[in-house]
Amino acid sequence: MVVSVAHLGPPGTYAEAAALAYVSWLTQMGKEALLCPYPSIAQTLRAAAQGQVDLAVVPVENSVEGSVTTTLDTLWQLDTLQIQQALVLPISHALMSRAPNLEAIQTVYSHPQALAQCQGWLERFLPQAQLVPTNATTEALKYLDEDKTAGAIASSRAAQLYNLPILVCPINDYVDNYTRFWVLSLQPATGGSCTSLAFSVPANVPGALAKLLQVFASRDINLSRIESRPTKRSLGDYLFFIDLEANTTEASVQSALEELSTYTETLKIFGSYSILPVGKL
Amino acid sequence: MVVSVAHLGPPGTYAEAAALAYVSWLTQMGKEALLCPYPSIAQTLRAAAQGQVDLAVVPVENSVEGSVTTTLDTLWQLDTLQIQQALVLPISHALMSRAPNLEAIQTVYSHPQALAQCQGWLERFLPQAQLVPTNATTEALKYLDEDKTAGAIASSRAAQLYNLPILVCPINDYVDNYTRFWVLSLQPATGGSCTSLAFSVPANVPGALAKLLQVFASRDINLSRIESRPTKRSLGDYLFFIDLEANTTEASVQSALEELSTYTETLKIFGSYSILPVGKL
Repeated sequence: MVVSVAHLGPPGTYAEAAALAYVSWLTQMGKEALLCPYPSIAQTLRAAAQGQVDLAVVPVENSVEGSVTTTLDTLWQLDTLQIQQALVLPISHALMSRAPNLEAIQTVYSHPQALAQCQGWLERFLPQAQLVPTNATTEALKYLDEDKTAGAIASSRAAQLYNLPILVCPINDYVDNYTRFWVLSLQPATGGSCTSLAFSVPANVPGALAKLLQVFASRDINLSRIESRPTKRSLGDYLFFIDLEANTTEASVQSALEELSTYTETLKIFGSYSILPVGKL
Repeated sequence: MVVSVAHLGPPGTYAEAAALAYVSWLTQMGKEALLCPYPSIAQTLRAAAQGQVDLAVVPVENSVEGSVTTTLDTLWQLDTLQIQQALVLPISHALMSRAPNLEAIQTVYSHPQALAQCQGWLERFLPQAQLVPTNATTEALKYLDEDKTAGAIASSRAAQLYNLPILVCPINDYVDNYTRFWVLSLQPATGGSCTSLAFSVPANVPGALAKLLQVFASRDINLSRIESRPTKRSLGDYLFFIDLEANTTEASVQSALEELSTYTETLKIFGSYSILPVGKL
């Protein structure tokens, strides 16, 4: 049986790199896999939720730019997907262009997250260039053939795939630039030392958060991350996404979740999973 | 003396609308003011930090799309600006175009936050349209004259300013769509019932957050918001931005901040301020 893996496309995106890393692990496990590119992160997740594909690989957070809010918001809405695995990928941005040198570049196209991750470098070495956002790093590449004064920021793999010259690499402001991805499916989570969940609290109970965190602190369960997102109902009304360094089958976690559910309005558990180590791409 | 007020430009952005609302309040106080548009939020804040202008008006969070991360990250870096005032503006998005009807529209340009806030409407009424991000809502407008199949999402005020026909308004998915802005300057904060601060914690102390929140909970100080941002040092290393429903001159807040500073690595207090009520724009 071939496992179908959805990701933000087209080929050459960092999401495809993450999907490839996961597929190479699947292959080592003796499974065959097929990549399925989708035009947006929301559509990637919906494809898995609707059973059109077996798995979806989506970015969750970057070490420089923070959460990928579309992923969190769509997961909360869908309510059915479970995390099978986390992957942490080192990110290295390349500046590609058909311009003869840096001075000739007047416009730089890329995804807003990539532009933000290189803003210091761009201000220093391309102060004259106008920065233009695109929907995916790969979408930026289409301008390079027709416009010799255009540059694009994407992965070195994208430069190879589309046969484009790299002028400088890496150009990220922080060398330690990593993106965490989740592999999700309709299957039950596989277990591991990380657990992710999200909850909303009844409106107008802002002080409730300290009590909710105390539920974990009093049981010595470490939180590795807390992220707030608007409920979209009204300003000042939030959901919280939390990552625990623990597994849902542990007795302390089960009792914590039981206590937590008495304070929360809606509680969604995205499962326990492990982190797959992957090399530089 | 004329008060200079920096904002994300050009005229017609929601940031300009917020700056205008603040200026109209300044005028009522008998002060004269001058608007100074800047090409990015970071440059708007830097202009105030470097004393080029007296005040900067910047968006902090939207009720649907959440935090404006550039604002938080730049404020943390600058370290000198104090919040003078908060403003909450109702946001109403208009679709403008020189196309004769919706069916003729093939591309919709706007700032990614505005596109995200209208995504349900766009999927339903313009499923054929390609969505193209721009750096500001007003930047989207330049495409409309040359391309009759292009649409743009911006404020009704922008349509008036640039003499563009509105096809549909409002098109936001959530009618209750508000953006909170901060007015910042190098002057000491003016005081009020809200206080904002941010802190980093020593690395690898993930469980510390519950203890930090307990500092406020044990003194019955309500938190109205908590937001995490990456420190950009490494994945899993965060700063926290917190809003308190209290004033820094209160004894309980002073003792809380004193205790807090013993746990935090860096603690930055952006001041106490009040919220200026403004009507629909």
